[in-house]
Amino acid sequence: MVRDGLASWNDGAAKRSILDFVQRVTTEGGKDFVPVPERIAVFDNDGTLWCEQPFPFQGLFVLDRIRALAPQHPEWKDQQPFKGVIENDMKSLAAGGMPALVELVMATHAGMTSEEFDGIVKDWLATSRHPKFNQPYTDLVYQPMVELLAFLRANDFETFIVSGGGIEFMRTFSEKTYGVPPHQVVGSSIVTKYEVLDGKPVLMRDAKLDFYDDHDGKPVAINKFIGRRPIAAFGNSDGDFQMLEWVTGGSGPRFALLVHHEDAVREFAYNRSAVGNLEQALQEAPKRGWIVVSMKNDWNQIFAYEDKEALQREPELSASVRS
Amino acid sequence: MVRDGLASWNDGAAKRSILDFVQRVTTEGGKDFVPVPERIAVFDNDGTLWCEQPFPFQGLFVLDRIRALAPQHPEWKDQQPFKGVIENDMKSLAAGGMPALVELVMATHAGMTSEEFDGIVKDWLATSRHPKFNQPYTDLVYQPMVELLAFLRANDFETFIVSGGGIEFMRTFSEKTYGVPPHQVVGSSIVTKYEVLDGKPVLMRDAKLDFYDDHDGKPVAINKFIGRRPIAAFGNSDGDFQMLEWVTGGSGPRFALLVHHEDAVREFAYNRSAVGNLEQALQEAPKRGWIVVSMKNDWNQIFAYEDKEALQREPELSASVRS
Repeated sequence: MVRDGLASWNDGAAKRSILDFVQRVTTEGGKDFVPVPERIAVFDNDGTLWCEQPFPFQGLFVLDRIRALAPQHPEWKDQQPFKGVIENDMKSLAAGGMPALVELVMATHAGMTSEEFDGIVKDWLATSRHPKFNQPYTDLVYQPMVELLAFLRANDFETFIVSGGGIEFMRTFSEKTYGVPPHQVVGSSIVTKYEVLDGKPVLMRDAKLDFYDDHDGKPVAINKFIGRRPIAAFGNSDGDFQMLEWVTGGSGPRFALLVHHEDAVREFAYNRSAVGNLEQALQEAPKRGWIVVSMKNDWNQIFAYEDKEALQREPELSASVRS
Repeated sequence: MVRDGLASWNDGAAKRSILDFVQRVTTEGGKDFVPVPERIAVFDNDGTLWCEQPFPFQGLFVLDRIRALAPQHPEWKDQQPFKGVIENDMKSLAAGGMPALVELVMATHAGMTSEEFDGIVKDWLATSRHPKFNQPYTDLVYQPMVELLAFLRANDFETFIVSGGGIEFMRTFSEKTYGVPPHQVVGSSIVTKYEVLDGKPVLMRDAKLDFYDDHDGKPVAINKFIGRRPIAAFGNSDGDFQMLEWVTGGSGPRFALLVHHEDAVREFAYNRSAVGNLEQALQEAPKRGWIVVSMKNDWNQIFAYEDKEALQREPELSASVRS
């Protein structure tokens, strides 16, 4: 039975396409019926389930961590890319490109146990606020997508996150924020090693890339972690292109959707993020039958934290929040 | 509520320890209560959920496949390790050691798509019979362990397989045979690549090891695939040692169990298999509070295929099956 809990979705082609797909795959005896174990849906995270501007939030975590750790590393003040971060010199930082980013990631993500990393990320999420919206990052998840996750699960889908973000970073909040348990979160990873220290077994995080879960990596990771081709995929960028292609390349009913960021007032408007283009996926969407969601027109609420009634009562506050 | 569907388990210390553990972790308000999302149990496969003698079944698949493919590879008849397999010369084969085994695995597991491999394995499982028991391999699963998987799930556990066996090999039968869906099967893997061939996206299996899921690899894989420390672990060999150590090294109620193969009449008796020792784990078990199951004394039925009444009615047939 299809139950519609998609209150933040305006009535329109995007919402109707979701309802229609779920109706078809759950109708027993119908030609598009899909047995429960095959109802797998995969979601990108950055830009699809939560905001990714002005910079993917895990990148903001890296910058904050470098600054927090700087007193223990006096050598960093003369050493790029650390110097650029400490001095908030984004130009030098950008000049370092991907190698600089990797160096910063390893300095903040490795050299500790998995449990320690979990605690560090949870602390950061509990205490940090977004530079524009002044909200905890985990409140900057898209309310319509949270509703969509729950709607699919209510119709016996298993929902997975398949993101370029760090797998252990996302797992610190995915269950509470999205209702997605750790074992249904797939992401990029660094090498982890099993060690017994003073009789206590630990998993040590090592400063080496294990897997980069973006572009071609997404279908590979879906195969490795899920082991079955999903029937629905949700993304927003070119990094999701192959995932949507893989999912919709299967036989039987398939669904793919891209979130399009063109609401500069309530969120951000962009066709290129810090981590990649969005254009190939958006251009290919109509040819391939992928649905494009207009955040401006299809969603009556963007963020989970927003209280629409309060915003209506206090337009000045609303405007300042949305500056 | 604890429901006991463990009909193939004799009443004894092993069965009682399982019932006691499940009772404790599911009793709300009790000091050992474990919330549902943390009820994760991990199971080795070879020698724990199904038979692994005279050779792990995936190894028998490799040998059968080499012989099936030999007509397409005339060069193999003069080339080790293929020559040894074709001529059933197990001595030459053993002399080749691990490099020979890896060569045979790659020749039978790579160079095809994931879908093609899935079909090949399913065909083999449907048509092959065990050399001693003359049964399909998927009927040589341990009935008490199948009951245990179902019992744990009935008490809101998520059950995962964490095996040195090939992840895609196991996924061909895990759902039907064990009730464990593909995304809850963790195993060894080879590298897979995403390609688009004539407009059709495929996952090509490449002749390179990706991950070996045994010994130290098991806690690492648990962390990667499950992202949470299980509270119960089931194994049979030294390859499971670190998994049991990792699981029982956590705080709160923990459970670990080893299946001990000492029933030469109904199954096999061994302390060393083709792929490794069992002795370290068995020796450490009492010190660490791990339960050791005697297949002879604790299980009144071994295999899922056995019909106990029929065996009682026809002792001659029974003896011949168990030669």
